[in-house]
Amino acid sequence: MTSHAQKLHNDYPWITPNTPLISSAPMRLISVPSLPLAVSRAGGLGFIAAGTDASSLPTELDDINTSLLHHPIPLTPPGLLPIGIGFILWGSSLPSTLSTLHSTPLKPAAIWLFAPHQTTDLALWTSSIRAASPLTKIWIQTGTVAETLQVALECAPDVLVIQGSDAGGHGLANSSSIISLLPECADALAENGFGDIPLLAAGGISDGRGVAAAWQLGAVGVSMGTRFLATPEAKISNGYRDAVVAARDGGVSTARTTVYDRVRGTAGWPERYDGRGVLNETYWDERGGMGEEENQRLYKEAMGRGDEGWGVEGKGRMTAYAGTGVGLIRKVMGAGEVVREVQRDAVRLLERGSKL
Amino acid sequence: MTSHAQKLHNDYPWITPNTPLISSAPMRLISVPSLPLAVSRAGGLGFIAAGTDASSLPTELDDINTSLLHHPIPLTPPGLLPIGIGFILWGSSLPSTLSTLHSTPLKPAAIWLFAPHQTTDLALWTSSIRAASPLTKIWIQTGTVAETLQVALECAPDVLVIQGSDAGGHGLANSSSIISLLPECADALAENGFGDIPLLAAGGISDGRGVAAAWQLGAVGVSMGTRFLATPEAKISNGYRDAVVAARDGGVSTARTTVYDRVRGTAGWPERYDGRGVLNETYWDERGGMGEEENQRLYKEAMGRGDEGWGVEGKGRMTAYAGTGVGLIRKVMGAGEVVREVQRDAVRLLERGSKL
Repeated sequence: MTSHAQKLHNDYPWITPNTPLISSAPMRLISVPSLPLAVSRAGGLGFIAAGTDASSLPTELDDINTSLLHHPIPLTPPGLLPIGIGFILWGSSLPSTLSTLHSTPLKPAAIWLFAPHQTTDLALWTSSIRAASPLTKIWIQTGTVAETLQVALECAPDVLVIQGSDAGGHGLANSSSIISLLPECADALAENGFGDIPLLAAGGISDGRGVAAAWQLGAVGVSMGTRFLATPEAKISNGYRDAVVAARDGGVSTARTTVYDRVRGTAGWPERYDGRGVLNETYWDERGGMGEEENQRLYKEAMGRGDEGWGVEGKGRMTAYAGTGVGLIRKVMGAGEVVREVQRDAVRLLERGSKL
Repeated sequence: MTSHAQKLHNDYPWITPNTPLISSAPMRLISVPSLPLAVSRAGGLGFIAAGTDASSLPTELDDINTSLLHHPIPLTPPGLLPIGIGFILWGSSLPSTLSTLHSTPLKPAAIWLFAPHQTTDLALWTSSIRAASPLTKIWIQTGTVAETLQVALECAPDVLVIQGSDAGGHGLANSSSIISLLPECADALAENGFGDIPLLAAGGISDGRGVAAAWQLGAVGVSMGTRFLATPEAKISNGYRDAVVAARDGGVSTARTTVYDRVRGTAGWPERYDGRGVLNETYWDERGGMGEEENQRLYKEAMGRGDEGWGVEGKGRMTAYAGTGVGLIRKVMGAGEVVREVQRDAVRLLERGSKL
């Protein structure tokens, strides 16, 4: 194993050895306990999503504890929860997070920090969490080389999640894909003495090919969001899940936009972020000149239609955040099966790579 | 070798065996004979750029013939020019192209077609070129899964160049990076009986890591443009070349825009295209509300300043088209050396890939 892989394996001993790490992204309202539990049980590392509102976090942690009491994940170190928690910093309360961390008997293996008002907030969260829960590793998500270097310097994170422009849901409005971003971050980190921080790649990865590519770019693993939407464990409507499975040609059936935030009344994202979602009537009506009020009214109307509110190829109105990798997703399968299939395919490709 | 690699090697016997193919993109006004000659001499396949105005093409072909007479490239099949020609279809004349093809003694190994007014134009160009020059292989550049399938069906190209959103210069305004685009195209082609067409990846690839990643995604080689800007063989001003070497954080120091076409008076690109370039005063002044006329005036003024007209980090005004991979480029080196270094690094990574 590489030193990065060895480091991850020391920190999360249940993960599958000799293969890139597969983690499931903390998707707000979607990554409920069943999803990360299935991912970690299959040798990956799953994240629940506190998002911007951690009020349900204690209940979710209780549910995970109960599940693990009945069916422990072998090799989990004592006192550790083999699950991570993701926070969207601009909307999260650090005191409430610390209080939850103090009161939970098992400490999360990792906490994933994303989207602060300013980068300096990350340092405060990092040091506070480390003081409250020394077992917990800090993962920080970045999207530019400058941000990555600053975070390395100010926070010394245990893992950096490098998110490229193909990613679904929220991310930087201006960025490159991981094709150039990952190696440029790796070089900048190495040149500045931070070469020991393992990098995970995120954005546009749906299968073993993307994982093998990410490995060649310098990542020791990946985080997938969109692929895990097409699992029974993801807490999404069937309409949303069907849209994910149906969408094709991910570069044109999705786009980065703020319209879905605006019609849903989601306020608070710092200006540098927008979100990638499947294009539907909400998007095209705005492009056609429809005013925001009318678009919001139609959106609310669509919410009443249940699963019928979603669609692909310009149909439907409801938000289906998804990355460009959506076109590679053809069927719903268990989250654990996703982890095993993707790891198996990635390893096969990496081993075959030498037979040029 | 894979069957795709074998096919390329049969068609272009001088290319380095047992390694991904490296081709240099036909960059309008930049890819003059010295660049593709150096690339093909190093075991790649270089392209000159007819662009939208093929008037200098006969002279360029003469120059290449002369160079090859003095220093032939070993293993070149009789009658073949080990060089390709790229055409931007919306501005190119098919009759003039055919006349040049008829009169040139050595036939180009490949002709690269891009950016037609409508996809059906590609079929006419393909069949006409094949009739005029049976030795010449047809490369077609696409940027979506739908376009890729249509081109495969209507043109049966010898090679498909799949261009992702990270690419510099002109490309589709809406697309994904090759991370998801390449495998989704590969799947769609295989499912529709076109799995035998070799795919090259383009967009964001600057070094061996990008090439190894592209290989894992399903490409048998790559096309690089931006990387070859930083060679003495590229016909660009020192100011432009310096900007390429100086630019960092390629996802934020470049963006897709039409402003550089507008200030330069470049008209004719179909609406679905824009271009990625290094962000400078021209871009930021427009973002700040400057009118087009004033921006054009300042642009013309900057043209008079020579190399001083270019810059990075928001300085300079002159167009420096470049992809997100620009941040990985640190120095100027010979185009042949680029090919050899990138191939060597890619092979080393692919061979090491199995040692997980």
